[in-house]
Amino acid sequence: NNSPVAFTVTAGSFGYPSNVFKVISREDGLLYCLRRLDNVKCVSNKICAAVNETWSKIRHAGICQFHKCFISQRALFFVHEYQPGGKTLKEKYLDHGGKPQLLQERLLWSYTTQLVAAIRTVHANRLACRCLQPNHILRTSGGRLRISCVGIADALEFEARKSLAEIQREDMVCLGRIILSLATRTMITPSTNEETLRACGIFLAQHYSSDLHALTSALLSKPPSVYEVCGIMANHTMDELDNAYATCDAYSNQLAAEYESGRALRLLLKLGFVNERPEFGVNRQWAETGDCYVLKLFRDFVFHQADETGRPILDLGHVVTALNKLDASDTEKIVLASRDGKAILVVSYAEVANCLENAYSELCAVSSEGQPTYGGETTADQSEMTHYG
Amino acid sequence: NNSPVAFTVTAGSFGYPSNVFKVISREDGLLYCLRRLDNVKCVSNKICAAVNETWSKIRHAGICQFHKCFISQRALFFVHEYQPGGKTLKEKYLDHGGKPQLLQERLLWSYTTQLVAAIRTVHANRLACRCLQPNHILRTSGGRLRISCVGIADALEFEARKSLAEIQREDMVCLGRIILSLATRTMITPSTNEETLRACGIFLAQHYSSDLHALTSALLSKPPSVYEVCGIMANHTMDELDNAYATCDAYSNQLAAEYESGRALRLLLKLGFVNERPEFGVNRQWAETGDCYVLKLFRDFVFHQADETGRPILDLGHVVTALNKLDASDTEKIVLASRDGKAILVVSYAEVANCLENAYSELCAVSSEGQPTYGGETTADQSEMTHYG
Repeated sequence: NNSPVAFTVTAGSFGYPSNVFKVISREDGLLYCLRRLDNVKCVSNKICAAVNETWSKIRHAGICQFHKCFISQRALFFVHEYQPGGKTLKEKYLDHGGKPQLLQERLLWSYTTQLVAAIRTVHANRLACRCLQPNHILRTSGGRLRISCVGIADALEFEARKSLAEIQREDMVCLGRIILSLATRTMITPSTNEETLRACGIFLAQHYSSDLHALTSALLSKPPSVYEVCGIMANHTMDELDNAYATCDAYSNQLAAEYESGRALRLLLKLGFVNERPEFGVNRQWAETGDCYVLKLFRDFVFHQADETGRPILDLGHVVTALNKLDASDTEKIVLASRDGKAILVVSYAEVANCLENAYSELCAVSSEGQPTYGGETTADQSEMTHYG
Repeated sequence: NNSPVAFTVTAGSFGYPSNVFKVISREDGLLYCLRRLDNVKCVSNKICAAVNETWSKIRHAGICQFHKCFISQRALFFVHEYQPGGKTLKEKYLDHGGKPQLLQERLLWSYTTQLVAAIRTVHANRLACRCLQPNHILRTSGGRLRISCVGIADALEFEARKSLAEIQREDMVCLGRIILSLATRTMITPSTNEETLRACGIFLAQHYSSDLHALTSALLSKPPSVYEVCGIMANHTMDELDNAYATCDAYSNQLAAEYESGRALRLLLKLGFVNERPEFGVNRQWAETGDCYVLKLFRDFVFHQADETGRPILDLGHVVTALNKLDASDTEKIVLASRDGKAILVVSYAEVANCLENAYSELCAVSSEGQPTYGGETTADQSEMTHYG
């Protein structure tokens, strides 16, 4: 039910040959991440249904949402949220040759907080992530982490039925390994030997605060629950919250500015449909008289200003002001002159707005569909249109 | 140095007659909140300088930023960040007639977390808010709180020199009063009598969780430090963080969509300047030949499609697709036909984009300024332009 866009072959990180595809769903036209695992014998349709039931309701900004898993063509498929522009923590920080730079402590706390927030939501739903490895955590723009691959281990190891306490405890140990890996820029795995672990621990203690060292040590030895960790790192959570608020405010301000251009665009699209429309039959109304004449003169007023010597004036401020006043149906009067200067009209922006509305709806009425259609070439264009319309 | 836009008279909440103005700064053209206090005798220029020094560096998304205070016309002025669309907590929740609705516990925790986050930043800078009253806290869109009026008490009571511990402790008690006020929809002030306080405490205990009741009681009796409060409410902070992340993601997605319309708008603005430019002297180039002819046919291609019977087709999808391909200088070829059907051109989007760039830069070269100018009518329009250009 999906058409592949691009794909990557991964080295079977779940113990099976696997492929990852970026796909567009035929159902909703959105992008998804499709993962195919071959030769999986231990997963039945019943298991898929059980995993879908539990995981599809987990929503968190730090988790690539699990959508569904299913069996098809004798392979097991998982559909997750697609996160554009993501790199895994492994690619970003651990795949390096030579001597890497030390990461800032602030960044480590931000990542830790984000992972703890996601783990907390998962554990509160009586589940465990079971995929907390640097190669399964995406870092997307703005330094935001997203845990990918949730639910896969639940399907593959459904029969193993480890206790919830055990797998949640493993999550916390994995979190400790991730912090230690990032702090030392060394890949720490369950099979890393004691000596390396000790050396890494000493490195962390030397280069970072005692808070971070204590938390990491605790996670690796006697892991506290995720709720206990929340209490331990409350002050760092507040730092992260402060940043998140500031980011929200910045986005909100940018958005306000961009909405302005959205409004101006809609007006220009309407003017574009209406102006200079050739009179090719159907309706004589589209000759250059009446409403359309006013709109043509208005277009000249907006775009074709000239100074006293006849040199064109390119004043974007004038264009934007005029479009804003048109959008607001301002009562201010303007003088529209024909190019030969013989016809002069004094109209308000409100009257021009009226003309535009009339001309556009007449055009809609005579058009082949009766309404503007949204038949763009690709799905992506269609989704954009909802913001333009 | 500021021009007033609107103003409100407040009932002298700092013990002096005061006015609040919404002003536009002549320095940066931005909106600010200007507060004028009359008859203030105890504040000198030296005190203003000291307050400016300490408060102007405090930045937090939950605080209306303090910009400066100064003495002028024998009055004391304070300039703070202007927050559009805000209502005070008092107006929103406490000024009601009759039986108000119970606020959701989730909302109370969100507000508490936001206030604690702001207080934490202030206290960490060895300062205190000293203005934590429901009439000085703004609730802006998205349920975000902003503490206004910071720094005013510091100027007015500069000579009193209360100890830092004392004023920070007062902040925490004020926080307790705000939570209790919101939970009971009753204005609790320092002068509220014991009996009312007890009744309100019982109401809170009956209608909200023991967590919230315990925190409020502690704040009102033996207030813990803001850092201790962070630890106590760590799990609620995580809830707030989860919401903040989700909000960021939603904004980010909306922004991506809106940037699309920004791109399309810039193209339409350029086309608008170039197309149908009357040939009134200066430069014969602007006759309908060459680049401009291609662009005119392209405009018809984008906006003036018709079906086989000659009825206009209003296909926004076609318009957006064409503009996107123009923006991306796509190599796809299109057929442009003149209105009489006699001239037919086969060009790629890339070639059209080239024509547009040439025509636009030629127009810029002959224009009176040599460059597009940004001389909009008002400051607000100018600030918008930076996003269009």
